[in-house]
Amino acid sequence: MGDVRNVLWIMCDQLRWDYLSCYGHPHLHTPNIDRLAARGVRFDRAYVQSPFCGPSRMSAYTGRYCRSHGATWNGFPLRVGEPTLGDHLRKVGVVPAIVGKTHMVADTEGMEWLGIDPGSTIGVHVSECGFEPWERDDGLHPPGPYGGHPRYDEYLRSVGIDRDDPWDTAANSGRGDDGELLSGWLLKYSHLPADIPEEHSETPYMTRRAMAFMEEMGDRPWLCHLSLIKPHWPYIVPAPYHAMYRPEHVLPPVRSQAELENDHPVYKAYRESRICRSFSRDAVRERVIPAYMGLIKQIDDQMGVLFDFMEKRGLFGNTMIAFTSDHGDYLGDHWMGEKDLFHDPSVRVPLIVYDPRPEADATRGTARDELVEMIDLAPTFLAFQGAPPKPHILEGRDLAPLLHDSAPPARWRRYAISEYDYATREARQIIGNDQKDARLIMVRDARWKLIFAEGFRSMLFDLETDPDELTDLGADPATADVRERLEAAIFAWARQHHNRITMPPDAIERMTGGEPPGVLIGFWDESEYEATFGRPFSERG
Amino acid sequence: MGDVRNVLWIMCDQLRWDYLSCYGHPHLHTPNIDRLAARGVRFDRAYVQSPFCGPSRMSAYTGRYCRSHGATWNGFPLRVGEPTLGDHLRKVGVVPAIVGKTHMVADTEGMEWLGIDPGSTIGVHVSECGFEPWERDDGLHPPGPYGGHPRYDEYLRSVGIDRDDPWDTAANSGRGDDGELLSGWLLKYSHLPADIPEEHSETPYMTRRAMAFMEEMGDRPWLCHLSLIKPHWPYIVPAPYHAMYRPEHVLPPVRSQAELENDHPVYKAYRESRICRSFSRDAVRERVIPAYMGLIKQIDDQMGVLFDFMEKRGLFGNTMIAFTSDHGDYLGDHWMGEKDLFHDPSVRVPLIVYDPRPEADATRGTARDELVEMIDLAPTFLAFQGAPPKPHILEGRDLAPLLHDSAPPARWRRYAISEYDYATREARQIIGNDQKDARLIMVRDARWKLIFAEGFRSMLFDLETDPDELTDLGADPATADVRERLEAAIFAWARQHHNRITMPPDAIERMTGGEPPGVLIGFWDESEYEATFGRPFSERG
Repeated sequence: MGDVRNVLWIMCDQLRWDYLSCYGHPHLHTPNIDRLAARGVRFDRAYVQSPFCGPSRMSAYTGRYCRSHGATWNGFPLRVGEPTLGDHLRKVGVVPAIVGKTHMVADTEGMEWLGIDPGSTIGVHVSECGFEPWERDDGLHPPGPYGGHPRYDEYLRSVGIDRDDPWDTAANSGRGDDGELLSGWLLKYSHLPADIPEEHSETPYMTRRAMAFMEEMGDRPWLCHLSLIKPHWPYIVPAPYHAMYRPEHVLPPVRSQAELENDHPVYKAYRESRICRSFSRDAVRERVIPAYMGLIKQIDDQMGVLFDFMEKRGLFGNTMIAFTSDHGDYLGDHWMGEKDLFHDPSVRVPLIVYDPRPEADATRGTARDELVEMIDLAPTFLAFQGAPPKPHILEGRDLAPLLHDSAPPARWRRYAISEYDYATREARQIIGNDQKDARLIMVRDARWKLIFAEGFRSMLFDLETDPDELTDLGADPATADVRERLEAAIFAWARQHHNRITMPPDAIERMTGGEPPGVLIGFWDESEYEATFGRPFSERG
Repeated sequence: MGDVRNVLWIMCDQLRWDYLSCYGHPHLHTPNIDRLAARGVRFDRAYVQSPFCGPSRMSAYTGRYCRSHGATWNGFPLRVGEPTLGDHLRKVGVVPAIVGKTHMVADTEGMEWLGIDPGSTIGVHVSECGFEPWERDDGLHPPGPYGGHPRYDEYLRSVGIDRDDPWDTAANSGRGDDGELLSGWLLKYSHLPADIPEEHSETPYMTRRAMAFMEEMGDRPWLCHLSLIKPHWPYIVPAPYHAMYRPEHVLPPVRSQAELENDHPVYKAYRESRICRSFSRDAVRERVIPAYMGLIKQIDDQMGVLFDFMEKRGLFGNTMIAFTSDHGDYLGDHWMGEKDLFHDPSVRVPLIVYDPRPEADATRGTARDELVEMIDLAPTFLAFQGAPPKPHILEGRDLAPLLHDSAPPARWRRYAISEYDYATREARQIIGNDQKDARLIMVRDARWKLIFAEGFRSMLFDLETDPDELTDLGADPATADVRERLEAAIFAWARQHHNRITMPPDAIERMTGGEPPGVLIGFWDESEYEATFGRPFSERG
């Protein structure tokens, strides 16, 4: 491996952990992603730090928990002065580029306060959570708060798809029997082919953009965050992918009648919301899931194109590749739609890491059970690309021990943590609680998963006896000791330093036990000074 | 009261709550400060957010807990992007000036990253924690990290005190029998008069600077943070104050033999440190405390000068005045010197607030028992000066209900919180724990004070039966329920939002229950859309 080390960080959006064949899906075959897993390590207990786009991504990009970066929901700006992976990499000469979605909203008020011109180089980095915006595209083209860079629309027009809002009317719409346009926003039309040639749809387009980026970089070291909007809604996919899966490929929903009797106020409020009622219907699942699977199959094919491209250029020799997602999708499991809560379909993600270093040869094709958090990627990439560790800022762990040695590491985290702020959600209106208190914290250990719900009892699942998380033991007196232990773990985590980010450990170590120059405290006289410092008081600095 | 409203925020450094006659000191008469208390409200349970200069002040200036602003110890820079009282006031046209000490260390690395020139107007504000540096002077003249603005040294030279480092060699030194200079850094010489005419010593100088600031402001609204370095060490005071108090005025130390048997690792490590051993000696106390009292008496006299000046100019008609301190001084109580821990001599401070509004007439001269935190001043000042509340940033409470109504408020905080990070302290070396874990959190309710010590048992004091805090009940099985309740209060506080600072509550309220424009989730077909929004799908925005 030469001196130049690159990172390709592929992130899908809303891809459940279990919708890849390497994770066991029986009908959805993803040979290209599986091939990556065969050359890398597959993590079987990887958790995002919030089961929702914006906060999950801000955690991924800062390497910090939601409680630390503060951008706890979609559209909540990441504060100016919150350092990101891109900021750290830039300092060691790596070009950290975004190709696709970030869900970042700039802190314009903060920039104005600090005199940072949003159009300046620094202002652009601040606005793009530290990335170089090689191509920023969050899907959701205008209108919408993330639609500032509709280069994809221009592209569609350049290839002859010259309509109003072509992202909406071509890439995300189908056609009815009479040729009328039918919107992919409506689930009823998810089975239609998107009204766009496949090659011009979002996933192939953005994959080509990533390849163009790599070509442009030449010998400069880079991190490419290829961040695909799919299989996120609108659930609609172009031919031939729209017809690859049928209702018989739809797995039965993971849910139980007992769940409907669970009266936990937060779960109940979600279950009663329109979205969850919708995704609990078989008709919805049978339309949506085949399209969802088609979108993933298309991603897998594009990964094949991308990996071939990289192979030809020798990039597998010096590029670390991570494949993951920002959260999952309930798809009707647990009577839920979307994400927001902490069942595995929502909060657990696929994570495959290919490490080109020879040290990783021992682990290729293996799977790991250790608890891994999305915030682990930032320190893993930083270490791989030769940046100094920043343990006072980054709250995740370098995955290298798990990538280089198939034996369990001597020390690893015992708990994975995820958070959710439902202040803006319909569920809070249903519950009627204060926006300050709409807080959930998940803690998961090797066996148990507890969801701490502010103002209410915790939810609790025993993943050993109940891997499908169908039985909430949060009110069961027999589990009181487990709840106490896991709530204590949340307490220990919450009271840690989360903001002591200006003082690296070595600086603290240098200060320890001393006073600033010239400061003397509690010395009685000259002789005490001399006995302490070994020089006369008259020679004090 | 006219349209212009000012704030005078007087902060002493290291002034114990009980070394003023209005707080009951039997020998130290402070009629001028008492006069302010007679016109305002005296708070009898006021706590700083850290018993140490830097973090306490960063909490005071940001209105946020230490865990939130992250500058947890002296010399730890306040991160760029952490908003302060001064920043908020500037937006409503108030000039927020520092006259004296802040203990701020600028985040130069952060400024460089964000392209903020430290010499620019914004850079100066960032470097001075939001204040206009009308006169920044942290004491501790060169050498030392806070000695960047030795205007006082120039002043001393201008009045003929033309020595090397005149702050050290004149203002903070005395002379021996043979005329030799003896340093005020050494406690043995605390009884000597400082080798400087009283009028040129630090307290009168800085008080005059505050008056000059007020004159310069004219009709512009201002906040003047008159931040006196005294009675902080070096403990030495000019004549005649050096001779006003004698050993017979020194109150006996509050300590017990039982405390020496307390084996709590943190308390024990402190007790064993050089500073605490020094201040446990009677000889030290009898030299230091009379000087400490003299320094306070000098402050009181200067407050008389200042208040007369303000009275003459009608400033009592439109100026809110707060008198307080950044922390206390053990002075040998509990076998301790300095501050750092959470006994009342260290963490409790005097706080007097004079409110010129007629609404405050009902409370003049009263004392209050409610738990008040130093971070309450920022929102109190902001509201008084007409700035919008910032509940998503500021963590304290506007004191107005306590200033305007002598009855207990319907809702007030039940717990006061303070934190301490002893990562850099000798005590951590003695204990041998990790710098990440050198954390203490105090919670105090109406009756109890608990100190949570990471890795060790909590300390606990019953302030009802043991107001002197001589008996640590932290290991007493009979108090298990109290400890559990107070630890739960810390947990509740720790898991709150501390960093969701870019989203004000009204913005969150506007977002609640909706989606961004153009986004539709979980709608089956056109009729469901129309039933929900009352307009045809074809008219969607």
